[in-house]
Amino acid sequence: MYDMRTTYGKLPKEVLEKTVFKWLGAKRKDVLLWPAYGEDAAVVDVPKRRLVIACDPITGSRKLLGWLSVHINANDVAVCGAKPAWFSSCILLPKNDEHLFASIVKQIHRAASELHVSVITGHSEVALHISEPIIIGTMIGIVEGNKYYMTRGAKPGDKILMTKTAAIEGTAILATDLSEALSSKIDKRLLKRASMFYRKISVVNEAIKIASTGLATAMHDPTEGGLLGGLYEMSEASGTGFIVYENAIPIARETKIICETLRCDPLKLISSGTLIASFRGNYKKIISALKRAGIKAAIIGEVVPKKYGRKVIRSEGTVESIKSTVTDELWRILSEHLLQKCGTN
Amino acid sequence: MYDMRTTYGKLPKEVLEKTVFKWLGAKRKDVLLWPAYGEDAAVVDVPKRRLVIACDPITGSRKLLGWLSVHINANDVAVCGAKPAWFSSCILLPKNDEHLFASIVKQIHRAASELHVSVITGHSEVALHISEPIIIGTMIGIVEGNKYYMTRGAKPGDKILMTKTAAIEGTAILATDLSEALSSKIDKRLLKRASMFYRKISVVNEAIKIASTGLATAMHDPTEGGLLGGLYEMSEASGTGFIVYENAIPIARETKIICETLRCDPLKLISSGTLIASFRGNYKKIISALKRAGIKAAIIGEVVPKKYGRKVIRSEGTVESIKSTVTDELWRILSEHLLQKCGTN
Repeated sequence: MYDMRTTYGKLPKEVLEKTVFKWLGAKRKDVLLWPAYGEDAAVVDVPKRRLVIACDPITGSRKLLGWLSVHINANDVAVCGAKPAWFSSCILLPKNDEHLFASIVKQIHRAASELHVSVITGHSEVALHISEPIIIGTMIGIVEGNKYYMTRGAKPGDKILMTKTAAIEGTAILATDLSEALSSKIDKRLLKRASMFYRKISVVNEAIKIASTGLATAMHDPTEGGLLGGLYEMSEASGTGFIVYENAIPIARETKIICETLRCDPLKLISSGTLIASFRGNYKKIISALKRAGIKAAIIGEVVPKKYGRKVIRSEGTVESIKSTVTDELWRILSEHLLQKCGTN
Repeated sequence: MYDMRTTYGKLPKEVLEKTVFKWLGAKRKDVLLWPAYGEDAAVVDVPKRRLVIACDPITGSRKLLGWLSVHINANDVAVCGAKPAWFSSCILLPKNDEHLFASIVKQIHRAASELHVSVITGHSEVALHISEPIIIGTMIGIVEGNKYYMTRGAKPGDKILMTKTAAIEGTAILATDLSEALSSKIDKRLLKRASMFYRKISVVNEAIKIASTGLATAMHDPTEGGLLGGLYEMSEASGTGFIVYENAIPIARETKIICETLRCDPLKLISSGTLIASFRGNYKKIISALKRAGIKAAIIGEVVPKKYGRKVIRSEGTVESIKSTVTDELWRILSEHLLQKCGTN
């Protein structure tokens, strides 16, 4: 008889002991109860402070699944001005693949260690009804002092700053997933460099630095919908408009070339790794605080009253209005590529 | 062209505003940043205390998906002696079904309200690679005072107590999922009552009551593997053995009849809703504290040194040793039923 239990359900104790009970990120002293057999929860010691909690899934069979899950959730916590501290994950696998499981858990451990984050609880099972691994991460961060930041804090008159370059994550995804198609058109070394853009995906450092200046009014990390999507979300949450200048927006050479080749807009391409912040006061103070930490930043525009709309002034001088949630270019590019591939097979 | 974006990805703002931004459980004053458009995290205010965090998925198309997600995670937090306070969920849907989504979110709201828990952050999307809805819940609870409980705290000589009856969740699942097959063999009113056993699934009240007596050494809520599976986990985590008496274990009439009909062991049937605790001292103090809260409990055996093994003395006098993780009867019963159904079609 087919025994579902040997195929689905929680992973065996022996596997857990070699993986999730072993690779637990940083050894923070404030974790009182760590993951262990039979323990279904974690206990942490909290100073009288404010906590920030964020929860995001990573789906698909991407190589960096576990690593991304930590960083994406850490970003959401950091843009609130909190230092990521404790991470828990739910790992769902389509089939019992010990090697894949161990590699995911190791990635989580590595990313958590980088951020001085402990992995405190979680769940892992071979689940029915899924065909690819799914990781759902929850990150808890501690607010330094009393001030926390929200996406909704932008006010007309604030300047808008962005860190690093546009479309960091999108560049890495396209260079990796479409490497075959792109390698005939683009220099392979450039493509290799572009695929390493994943390394820039954390905005934790810059968020904490910006928070420490006390000048920001809102922070946000643009993901789906790219830089313009993130700006739309920030202005919609804040009840404002914005105006930004394409000329002022830093775009990496790798991103430019890949986007030109695929005819896609780097300002609408998934952009984890970039931080946007609205702020008042002396921008030099922020820029130099970031520079000391080795992070480049640029002033790309300003927050305006909602009635003035949400606009990007393109390099050629035309004005484009952003009137609703921005559809990410990634979906269009990947589905076009999928169709082409099906057509030629 | 097929636009993946209209089919997969985050749900639209309009849908979120009618659902996840509206039904947020209890209105706790310690929540500083609530779910809202563009906000990817929550902020909560924490007194100088200890927090307990638990994370579990609920998969499948079960009617009570959202409601179960809150209670199952609340149970894991409560058995550590913490009061559940804040819940976040990641809701993954196989297709865009607004009605299903709203019903899940309403269930979460209802369960959270019952427990005075606020829904503080989360994520919802139509996801690739899944064929049934999946909810991953994370619950954070606050430890009252300094003492928290672990599964691993049991010591030889402790008595073992259980609340309510065995196989509560399994009874509800079998009565619901096999109602067609069972209704020809069992009184329909009894089957109806059995399907309502879901209502007994929370162990939060009893866990908090038992914690308040200060007599418990460990608490655990048996889920997969049933009561005996839970006892195995507790003894394995504690490095002890146990001896329990089938005669002393309360089993509801509904459970008895369904298990006899399906020839399954109620002591190995999934048992959320039952709490097990090891304790020292005057059992009458615990039993009467529970009684005042309307919860029945029984002493079913004791913790022994590991070398004495893990044993259940069956009603007929035979001794059964539990030597490894208990395979839940549910998987066997459901797969047998599935095979029968396939055979007759």
